[in-house]
Amino acid sequence: MKHQDVPTSTINVGGTIFAYRELGPKTGVPVIFLTHLTAVLDNWDPRVVDGIAAKRHVITFDNRGVGASEGKVPDTIEAMARDAIAFIRALGFTQVDLLGLSLGGFITQKIVQLEPQLVRKIILAGTGPAGGSGIDKVTQITIFDMLRAALTFKDPKNYLFFSQTPNGKKAAGAFLQRLKERTANRDKAISLGAFYRQLRAVHAFGLERPADLSRVTQPVLVVNGDQDRMVPTSNSIDMSKRFPNAELVLYADGGHTAIFQYHEAFVNKALEFLGT
Amino acid sequence: MKHQDVPTSTINVGGTIFAYRELGPKTGVPVIFLTHLTAVLDNWDPRVVDGIAAKRHVITFDNRGVGASEGKVPDTIEAMARDAIAFIRALGFTQVDLLGLSLGGFITQKIVQLEPQLVRKIILAGTGPAGGSGIDKVTQITIFDMLRAALTFKDPKNYLFFSQTPNGKKAAGAFLQRLKERTANRDKAISLGAFYRQLRAVHAFGLERPADLSRVTQPVLVVNGDQDRMVPTSNSIDMSKRFPNAELVLYADGGHTAIFQYHEAFVNKALEFLGT
Repeated sequence: MKHQDVPTSTINVGGTIFAYRELGPKTGVPVIFLTHLTAVLDNWDPRVVDGIAAKRHVITFDNRGVGASEGKVPDTIEAMARDAIAFIRALGFTQVDLLGLSLGGFITQKIVQLEPQLVRKIILAGTGPAGGSGIDKVTQITIFDMLRAALTFKDPKNYLFFSQTPNGKKAAGAFLQRLKERTANRDKAISLGAFYRQLRAVHAFGLERPADLSRVTQPVLVVNGDQDRMVPTSNSIDMSKRFPNAELVLYADGGHTAIFQYHEAFVNKALEFLGT
Repeated sequence: MKHQDVPTSTINVGGTIFAYRELGPKTGVPVIFLTHLTAVLDNWDPRVVDGIAAKRHVITFDNRGVGASEGKVPDTIEAMARDAIAFIRALGFTQVDLLGLSLGGFITQKIVQLEPQLVRKIILAGTGPAGGSGIDKVTQITIFDMLRAALTFKDPKNYLFFSQTPNGKKAAGAFLQRLKERTANRDKAISLGAFYRQLRAVHAFGLERPADLSRVTQPVLVVNGDQDRMVPTSNSIDMSKRFPNAELVLYADGGHTAIFQYHEAFVNKALEFLGT
């Protein structure tokens, strides 16, 4: 079954209902997908979810206060990581792989610092470390691009997620079409207030003291476009040097969501890295 | 019954469910409240709603795509006005008074232009005319103040709705507390996408050719603070001169929502203007 047809499940996580979707073979270590600022379940590129789920057990979910998950978005990344850990445990998993995109990558890093034994392998896409260069500017860039998009009647993802070359613009259009493939039982929209609280947490993360990434012993795949203006690409390069066991893949002419733009190459690389 | 205790009702408006609340004596011409950018039913100052409802039949509602009302927010103010007219007709009313705040004031002006016979008296608060001075900047100011608020962990209404004097700041805090008075059956939050479409409609309204306000023969009460930076106060002064039958009230040391800051004076003035 494809992600567009997978029903949305719910689970009680310490009294709060969390929404998630589960697909792929239900064997082996599951891959938990942690999504970006403003995203709900329907914001994952179906090619990436279905591509990984062809070989691996995949779980996408809404963290607390996002989309159909109940509760209030916390105002720190660490609290979001604690919620994600509680969700993973509620599903009964004792070891998982993590794929964190942007905000999801911030949360992924906190999870592995809080509960290292829970995590086997890590993919960090379009993201950066606490206190990383320019991460304290994510809030500003996001809001400026929202304004730019509002005034030009475009989706801000055109500006924030893709390179501004002819190739990047074409890829943005194709991606936005793919997001419409699911027509039934779509997720709830994110509220303006939830977006707001996410922005605050991201801003605080950008101002944190740098974490000691040398303690992360898991294999890490760091992936990004070479032109990420939302979480500057220099952060991906920096992280790949600071993790003791990391591999870096940069896609030429790619932006913040290069894993969506180059979904075929990324899925192949991710499956090779994670193992099947 | 006070607004904080009034159950939320629903009505089918041409196939779309609209949410509303109804209070006060169910006699005479009803007063329809049209609310501001991002607002749902719970964003009305309870003192203003309850104050008017002490003497008049009051209806607050979520327009299409906002809060608990179904559908998608339209991208023009005129389409929002057509939705409001359809809602008023669906309730069975043939003549109403309108109280429009900010975005609600833009919609109110379109309603009276589209269906003049439907409207008896009009209150326009913190608003301006199509093509008015600085209305094309509302989008920009809103987004900048959202950023400023995100970075200072404050509600953007502190910056956008109240004067930045000690008096204005104190009034903002008291207002934000009043918004929490309703604890049960609160409205759904506005989605990020709905906010976005509202911003686009407001921006287009600011760029429209000025409407001919001299054709509006109804009595109009124009009210604002003397320091509205969201829809500059000069628009209130301008409108009060262009309507043939208008009265202007400006509150000193008041911002965009001076009707909330000076709710007691405003309720008295509004009831006198509307008649009881």
